Amino acid sequence: MGIGATTRDLAAGEIPEIGVGMLGYAFMGKAHSNAFRKIAYMTWPPPLVPRLVAIAGRNEEAVRNAATRYGYERATTDWRDLVSDPAIGLFDNGGPNSMHAEPTIAAAEAGKHVLCEKPLGRTADESFEIWQRVAATGVKHLCAFNYRFVPAVRFARELIDAGELGEIRHFRGRYLQDWGDDPALDTWRFHADEAGSGALGDLGAHVVDLSRYLVGEIATVSALVKTFLPGRQVDDAIEAAVEFESGAVGTIESTRLALGRRNAFQWEINGSKGSLAFDMERLNELQVFRNGSRTRGFTTVLVSEADHPFWEFWWPPGHIIGWGDTFVNEIHHLLRAIADDGEIAPHGATFEDGYRAAEVCDAIVRSGAGGSRDQVHYRTL
Amino acid sequence: MGIGATTRDLAAGEIPEIGVGMLGYAFMGKAHSNAFRKIAYMTWPPPLVPRLVAIAGRNEEAVRNAATRYGYERATTDWRDLVSDPAIGLFDNGGPNSMHAEPTIAAAEAGKHVLCEKPLGRTADESFEIWQRVAATGVKHLCAFNYRFVPAVRFARELIDAGELGEIRHFRGRYLQDWGDDPALDTWRFHADEAGSGALGDLGAHVVDLSRYLVGEIATVSALVKTFLPGRQVDDAIEAAVEFESGAVGTIESTRLALGRRNAFQWEINGSKGSLAFDMERLNELQVFRNGSRTRGFTTVLVSEADHPFWEFWWPPGHIIGWGDTFVNEIHHLLRAIADDGEIAPHGATFEDGYRAAEVCDAIVRSGAGGSRDQVHYRTL
Amino acid sequence: MGIGATTRDLAAGEIPEIGVGMLGYAFMGKAHSNAFRKIAYMTWPPPLVPRLVAIAGRNEEAVRNAATRYGYERATTDWRDLVSDPAIGLFDNGGPNSMHAEPTIAAAEAGKHVLCEKPLGRTADESFEIWQRVAATGVKHLCAFNYRFVPAVRFARELIDAGELGEIRHFRGRYLQDWGDDPALDTWRFHADEAGSGALGDLGAHVVDLSRYLVGEIATVSALVKTFLPGRQVDDAIEAAVEFESGAVGTIESTRLALGRRNAFQWEINGSKGSLAFDMERLNELQVFRNGSRTRGFTTVLVSEADHPFWEFWWPPGHIIGWGDTFVNEIHHLLRAIADDGEIAPHGATFEDGYRAAEVCDAIVRSGAGGSRDQVHYRTL
Amino acid sequence: MGIGATTRDLAAGEIPEIGVGMLGYAFMGKAHSNAFRKIAYMTWPPPLVPRLVAIAGRNEEAVRNAATRYGYERATTDWRDLVSDPAIGLFDNGGPNSMHAEPTIAAAEAGKHVLCEKPLGRTADESFEIWQRVAATGVKHLCAFNYRFVPAVRFARELIDAGELGEIRHFRGRYLQDWGDDPALDTWRFHADEAGSGALGDLGAHVVDLSRYLVGEIATVSALVKTFLPGRQVDDAIEAAVEFESGAVGTIESTRLALGRRNAFQWEINGSKGSLAFDMERLNELQVFRNGSRTRGFTTVLVSEADHPFWEFWWPPGHIIGWGDTFVNEIHHLLRAIADDGEIAPHGATFEDGYRAAEVCDAIVRSGAGGSRDQVHYRTL
Repeated sequence: MGIGATTRDLAAGEIPEIGVGMLGYAFMGKAHSNAFRKIAYMTWPPPLVPRLVAIAGRNEEAVRNAATRYGYERATTDWRDLVSDPAIGLFDNGGPNSMHAEPTIAAAEAGKHVLCEKPLGRTADESFEIWQRVAATGVKHLCAFNYRFVPAVRFARELIDAGELGEIRHFRGRYLQDWGDDPALDTWRFHADEAGSGALGDLGAHVVDLSRYLVGEIATVSALVKTFLPGRQVDDAIEAAVEFESGAVGTIESTRLALGRRNAFQWEINGSKGSLAFDMERLNELQVFRNGSRTRGFTTVLVSEADHPFWEFWWPPGHIIGWGDTFVNEIHHLLRAIADDGEIAPHGATFEDGYRAAEVCDAIVRSGAGGSRDQVHYRTL
Repeated sequence: MGIGATTRDLAAGEIPEIGVGMLGYAFMGKAHSNAFRKIAYMTWPPPLVPRLVAIAGRNEEAVRNAATRYGYERATTDWRDLVSDPAIGLFDNGGPNSMHAEPTIAAAEAGKHVLCEKPLGRTADESFEIWQRVAATGVKHLCAFNYRFVPAVRFARELIDAGELGEIRHFRGRYLQDWGDDPALDTWRFHADEAGSGALGDLGAHVVDLSRYLVGEIATVSALVKTFLPGRQVDDAIEAAVEFESGAVGTIESTRLALGRRNAFQWEINGSKGSLAFDMERLNELQVFRNGSRTRGFTTVLVSEADHPFWEFWWPPGHIIGWGDTFVNEIHHLLRAIADDGEIAPHGATFEDGYRAAEVCDAIVRSGAGGSRDQVHYRTL
Repeated sequence: MGIGATTRDLAAGEIPEIGVGMLGYAFMGKAHSNAFRKIAYMTWPPPLVPRLVAIAGRNEEAVRNAATRYGYERATTDWRDLVSDPAIGLFDNGGPNSMHAEPTIAAAEAGKHVLCEKPLGRTADESFEIWQRVAATGVKHLCAFNYRFVPAVRFARELIDAGELGEIRHFRGRYLQDWGDDPALDTWRFHADEAGSGALGDLGAHVVDLSRYLVGEIATVSALVKTFLPGRQVDDAIEAAVEFESGAVGTIESTRLALGRRNAFQWEINGSKGSLAFDMERLNELQVFRNGSRTRGFTTVLVSEADHPFWEFWWPPGHIIGWGDTFVNEIHHLLRAIADDGEIAPHGATFEDGYRAAEVCDAIVRSGAGGSRDQVHYRTL
Repeated sequence: MGIGATTRDLAAGEIPEIGVGMLGYAFMGKAHSNAFRKIAYMTWPPPLVPRLVAIAGRNEEAVRNAATRYGYERATTDWRDLVSDPAIGLFDNGGPNSMHAEPTIAAAEAGKHVLCEKPLGRTADESFEIWQRVAATGVKHLCAFNYRFVPAVRFARELIDAGELGEIRHFRGRYLQDWGDDPALDTWRFHADEAGSGALGDLGAHVVDLSRYLVGEIATVSALVKTFLPGRQVDDAIEAAVEFESGAVGTIESTRLALGRRNAFQWEINGSKGSLAFDMERLNELQVFRNGSRTRGFTTVLVSEADHPFWEFWWPPGHIIGWGDTFVNEIHHLLRAIADDGEIAPHGATFEDGYRAAEVCDAIVRSGAGGSRDQVHYRTL
């Protein structure tokens, strides 16, 4: 069944397959399935050829339709079917946050590599449990902070690693959306038990993750957590002043009520030699400032050159990619690590990264409730 | 053979297939193949399910690799194999300009629908011949001016059709790239016999087409045609002052030597009630100005709302698409017209549009050579 | 003596003069003097004609040169000369922060209207003392938060007052400069006794003031205060999460170490109906978002129309004004209030506003030091 | 009489005065008078101290009011009074275009230095006559193409002179306004006899002048000249493809009907090493592109650094100037040349430049009417 199932008849021995089991068929289900279907020909030759074995979801008709649409060989309403299927080598968890822990752990313990959407768990404790249990199995694990795989973001990291910014002093990050401004809207993302938190885990976790990826570990947070719409179970917005272990200071914000900002994950970093700025609504561009010249100023770098990150997969310079394409870059990274027994870190977020982001999110909740600056403590295995 | 061949086992009768024969495996081959592979699941349910039957190209090894990569069932070095294959219902010509006429006409005369990259022919005469011969067959024909299928461009057309701009007075269009600034580079695009012209047919034709799509027929051109690099057979740049049949005036420019502009197809339209502006390097945005209010100014519309053109296929608002995605929109339009026996025009460019753009390009060449304002004459069938 | 002394021979009785005594001849001395010299002809007919009576400063030669340059009738090294001069009706204090309290109070108690640069005092206590003492005299007092007089800022206030944004939920303000990144630089602005604080009082106070002007009173702050450069006596940067009395939440930041940002006072406000955004480096523009239409998006309003605030003084639309011109708007407002015995508030910042901003700044210092969210308490007279 | 007459009691011998006679009190009268009043203290020490001796205009009451407002010592309705006044050393012609020739020539022949608004004359012939007659007198002459004195424009010229762009290939310039879109509006600018032309001489002449200043002499034009509004005597818009003597090609456009563009004088230059772009609505910014690096892109240079052109006169970096301030830079340049018997060229536009711009404008008219590419011929003295 299915439209465009991946092919199993590639000349034997050329490129091995990996069977994929997908949990979730909605937003992330579409985004991940699209990536699995594009990886082979866009990143040719791919590290592994994804074979879309099965997809699981709660609604029987919907999951069957999704299987047909995306080309999964079969559909199921029981995620345990994926865990027990020996044809599946990679378990991809794109379900609601409350469905992250048990299936992901079970899949890993069944020997499958695991990809889990963010936030890893609904709390730091749950996230730690996932990380600990999965790490013990030895499988590859990637927490789907896909924005690390925006070419401009990876390029930012490369510039920072090369010392182009000097010592970093400021990180200013905010993830602004506005779809939360609808009292009539209902989704699992507004249910405390399924989502854990609101703008915090949904959007703020991305800000926390990129701040850690680009600047380093967060030491303290002084935060506010706010719900504006009556009856909403989860936060609409968070605001935090943060200090990094390096001494850099800045802010982390996220909201679903910034009218006019549809997907505005904006951040700026200031160092002793230069600065960087970014906006996800123009995700192909990186603003780069370097000190010293008479033509000083922020340069709008269109991150689409042959020597820019991930660009070997895409188009001629200036022919921009879309949001959906970041998942191709991300999952390619995971497949490469699986194929070569390579590392997910530092460029991919491991479950440890997922856990550490959760610790910062928990600290934001505590500081918001108690009113004190909160020192973030990170557990190790 | 092949990665990810489209599926032939969709529940019988649900959605019919159409066999695709592709000529060309380079830049456009990749762009079109990607679209064929994405259409079914991104535009679900698709009008037709593309079945990638065969791909043709000059280099045997390269075309075989392309077949494997993109999932075509077979490869051939002879495009006539595509024309004679009854499994192929749609012939897609992504070859060099010199390869547009004969194969496209042959395919149409063999009863296949045809999609041909722009410029349709190398001259107006050749383009007219293609149009005339293909129109006589009754098949669907689309000239791949894919920028009509950028959501922001279609949205511009909708705003104009709705009268939001009033009477149009100005069109200012320029397509700026800079990859031509390399004396060592060689490509068929620099060979007069294969390409016909340089920046004119490659980039200027796009400007001409969108000006016709958005403003109307061009009446006169006063132009310069310029080659800067020694030994280059084709033009590096063209500059033209133009008048439309409606009385609007403006400029059309294209160049491969605008350093720093990688894919900057920029245009602005001014009418008696409002204005629009666009830049392909930020293809998800349309600048909209309407007169009259105290908060007058250009609005940066992120064309990604549920009620925006093509957006039913894509992601939540603000999650932008890439250049490659415009081909999904374009080929979906063609498949819809084939499935429903609908019209390509006015939103798709027919071969008549391809021919008419060629007449303007020829007028630019004549005006550039002779120094006189050139009246464009359009033939009809 | 002096270049361009204002004229005293205007036809008698037409427009009364006001004698100006200026303290300070450096940055603010230049900015204010320029405004005094421009007001009469730019805002014609002016409420009062400034007569530049005297200027005071510490360095005898420098103050004499300043008098000649700007056209003050005389120079003095003793500010008390200004206080005792009956020809002076308006005392303008542009000296270092440590020189704000005593001269300003003395001038007011001598019956002169007073204009004092921000921050009003170095602490809330000092600011309260200035406000209390000056208010008791009955003179007009304006604390020179000149950014209230940027046309785009006043326009923002008008839109908010008209309900165009609905209920305000977020204020995100940051004032970023980078001149502090020079270990060799010395200025009174780095001396704790003269300046009181660093980026906080210099830049952060502006953010606090505009947040109060546009959103309302701040209730709590959760802040960090940071000094990066070794040996620097004052803060280089502050970061704060803030809650307003209205329930809106957001951030306030200021730094002198944001490389590449020269005068980037940027803020964004999100309400339940729309949003606004601004950057002082493009001070003629206001970004306006209103919900609801199919052409939704941020509109770049060039605030230079005949019906825009202050624009009656300036040029045809689109002919932008500069940073220095904001002082013309500001001092004109003060002269109008003096001439008509009108109110400074709400559009001008009174000394009460200066005091209230100081309370927020003190709360930032306390929260930064103590690590707790600080409730701001405002005293009344 | 008058507000703020410049001072005549500067310590004798320190800085000499120059008496100014102004023709015109409207838009340009205000802009020039503001500059005369600011030069002394903003550019301190000024080359000469302007003394505002007299202002002339047609309407007696209006000119008297202007004298009072701007501080001219006297008013007159007869420009010949200015020519015959020995106290006047500089004659500034800000009158309608039809009033440029006779008074300017008369003043020069009376030994006064002359500043004349652009366009110099209404035709190339008239402009040549002005240039020829004035040049013969030996006085300094400056044609007020004030946009040469925007810091970003001068900076562009410096970068070009330093070879940073390499060989220039393209100039794309357009001056877009929209105030012409009002059938009820009447002004001398719409009268053929007073203005000579419409958008061509008013706006297009600026484009021509800056193209000459930055790129070099124009060799040919292929143009359209268009009037949209019924009954309007002058052109609303011009469009031209141009070739420079250097071989560079591009476009020159101007219109008063580009809705939403208030003062958008935009230009872009592409060379073999880099590119520049500019928009007068953001006149403090220059976009600079240089080839070669991995962080290639257009840099937004805020032209306000201490080592940037003219910035010694202004404010700390990032504290932007306004449109009106460009006249301070311009007239300072003229006063410096007068004081030092220095050259107006190359940075100031002489009457020869005014004449040469007029030749290009005439060529545009001829090409627009006749339909042929027009070779521009320049006369010499």
